[in-house]
Amino acid sequence: MNEQPLTIPSPADIEGAAGRIRTLVRRTPVIHLAAGELDVPVPVTLKLEFLQHTGSFKVRGASNALALVRAGEHGAPTAGVCCASGGNHGAAVAWAAREANVPATAFVPDFSPKAKTDIIEALGARLRLVEGFYADALAASQDHARREGASHIDAYDDPRTVAGQGTLGLELAEQVPQGQPVLVGCGGGGLYAGVALALAGRNRVIAAEPSAASSLTAALEAGSPVDVEVGGVAVDSLGARRAGRIATAVGLSLGMKTLTVADEEITAARALLWRRLRIAAEPGAVTALAALLAHAEQFPDGATVVVSGANAAPPAGG
Amino acid sequence: MNEQPLTIPSPADIEGAAGRIRTLVRRTPVIHLAAGELDVPVPVTLKLEFLQHTGSFKVRGASNALALVRAGEHGAPTAGVCCASGGNHGAAVAWAAREANVPATAFVPDFSPKAKTDIIEALGARLRLVEGFYADALAASQDHARREGASHIDAYDDPRTVAGQGTLGLELAEQVPQGQPVLVGCGGGGLYAGVALALAGRNRVIAAEPSAASSLTAALEAGSPVDVEVGGVAVDSLGARRAGRIATAVGLSLGMKTLTVADEEITAARALLWRRLRIAAEPGAVTALAALLAHAEQFPDGATVVVSGANAAPPAGG
Repeated sequence: MNEQPLTIPSPADIEGAAGRIRTLVRRTPVIHLAAGELDVPVPVTLKLEFLQHTGSFKVRGASNALALVRAGEHGAPTAGVCCASGGNHGAAVAWAAREANVPATAFVPDFSPKAKTDIIEALGARLRLVEGFYADALAASQDHARREGASHIDAYDDPRTVAGQGTLGLELAEQVPQGQPVLVGCGGGGLYAGVALALAGRNRVIAAEPSAASSLTAALEAGSPVDVEVGGVAVDSLGARRAGRIATAVGLSLGMKTLTVADEEITAARALLWRRLRIAAEPGAVTALAALLAHAEQFPDGATVVVSGANAAPPAGG
Repeated sequence: MNEQPLTIPSPADIEGAAGRIRTLVRRTPVIHLAAGELDVPVPVTLKLEFLQHTGSFKVRGASNALALVRAGEHGAPTAGVCCASGGNHGAAVAWAAREANVPATAFVPDFSPKAKTDIIEALGARLRLVEGFYADALAASQDHARREGASHIDAYDDPRTVAGQGTLGLELAEQVPQGQPVLVGCGGGGLYAGVALALAGRNRVIAAEPSAASSLTAALEAGSPVDVEVGGVAVDSLGARRAGRIATAVGLSLGMKTLTVADEEITAARALLWRRLRIAAEPGAVTALAALLAHAEQFPDGATVVVSGANAAPPAGG
């Protein structure tokens, strides 16, 4: 996609996505926690997006993209759709495709958790395991699209996907106070870009990345997406080797500084969320919470944290 | 307690409880699911009470009762408080006592899940395992109260406890439409009584019981509480041998008919909730959902279901 001109979704694109997917996706609730409840001296609001269809926010973007594909704006759906994914976007495309009765193929790195690949297959999509990381699955999906005429739905660097993820931000605009910072986990940056665009001028949105896979941090430093090494406990959901051009442009234009967290902080946040709220979030989905816990002093009036997915077994113990 | 006059909480008692515990308990959100999402052709609203402190609604009643104890209405707290519980009420009393810096002792049947007894001990309460069922733990707690001068906080047949559970109903009055039926799981009936009183005239509230522990069903048939055999998959949370006098009086006065469900229906509802929403509810907490799934034809316009606790490991698989 890097040769194509860069398209940043407009507010109208995000509003359009919201109208398009309103009857498809769930409006997820928030819960407000008082200072101290999560061992930090500031109030925290959790956006419970793990309650979304297929267990992650990804169905927002996938549904919007598929609806636009079907509307003929980006190709005929008869040849089907395809995607690359650490698992959650694949499940989301599989789900949206099943709802629309369109064939789907998901290319997934072979280390992706069975919890995720099982969902893809249960939803009737073709699962193709690819040796390597997300970037390798991406190449395979793009190649498949060229050969088969299928429509590739990108996991994050696609304005249709970003606009769909932005609908989560529109919900937050009705759920949390103006001015309250919002933290989201970041792999390629589709969720970050969508939510930041939806809340621009209302709430500051901060992308949180694992230190072991900090592609957007590197992109913002370099001024454009660059390849980084990826690994760590959240690599199946935040393991993009190169941040999206859209997310990079949005982050640069807003002057956003990412927060990075160590694997141990992610694991600890996951255990805390299970112990205190019986939420079985996956590592990538608690990276934003881990960043808040590690940097609470930056949020003296509290923050909203998106808990974006739960396709993992709960942490061991308690 | 059976020799004492029966006190049914008034609307003012429930409003008073709400004010008393507002800063202590969490206001839990709801999520609206469209028809078909839970394999029934009616919309379902879930009240996500498993997100409450200690993982169940029980802290509402325990906090209200303890606040009233401390206010001197029912004895001095210096001798501490005690309770009998399948586990969740014990954890709730332990939590409320810790918040108030009051010693607590919880009497719990020896088959209660470790997930629950661990919480009680982690919260600093004394744990006393009792051979037998809830009724045996109740006798032990009442005996302890007499010997030690401690204040027994009853799990369900206590107007302070019932008024506290009723605060969940006050929240629902702001979250779900007037006229929509509300289903709650029922052991001794504290949650049922509180929510039914809080929503009287606004929403019909139906108590759902496991067939293997249907004490309120038996009480309503007999016209007063009677002993029943208890067992089944939800016995640790809904295993009251004898329904509360308060719940019985409320159920009789409202002409409420319980719904009963088989163990297999409870287990299936639990697996469904995990698969579709990654909610790790415990068996007692999905008994209401199981009743809706089994009797959907009675709720043609949908219903609200309270998911009341999650102190259990998630179901195996998927």
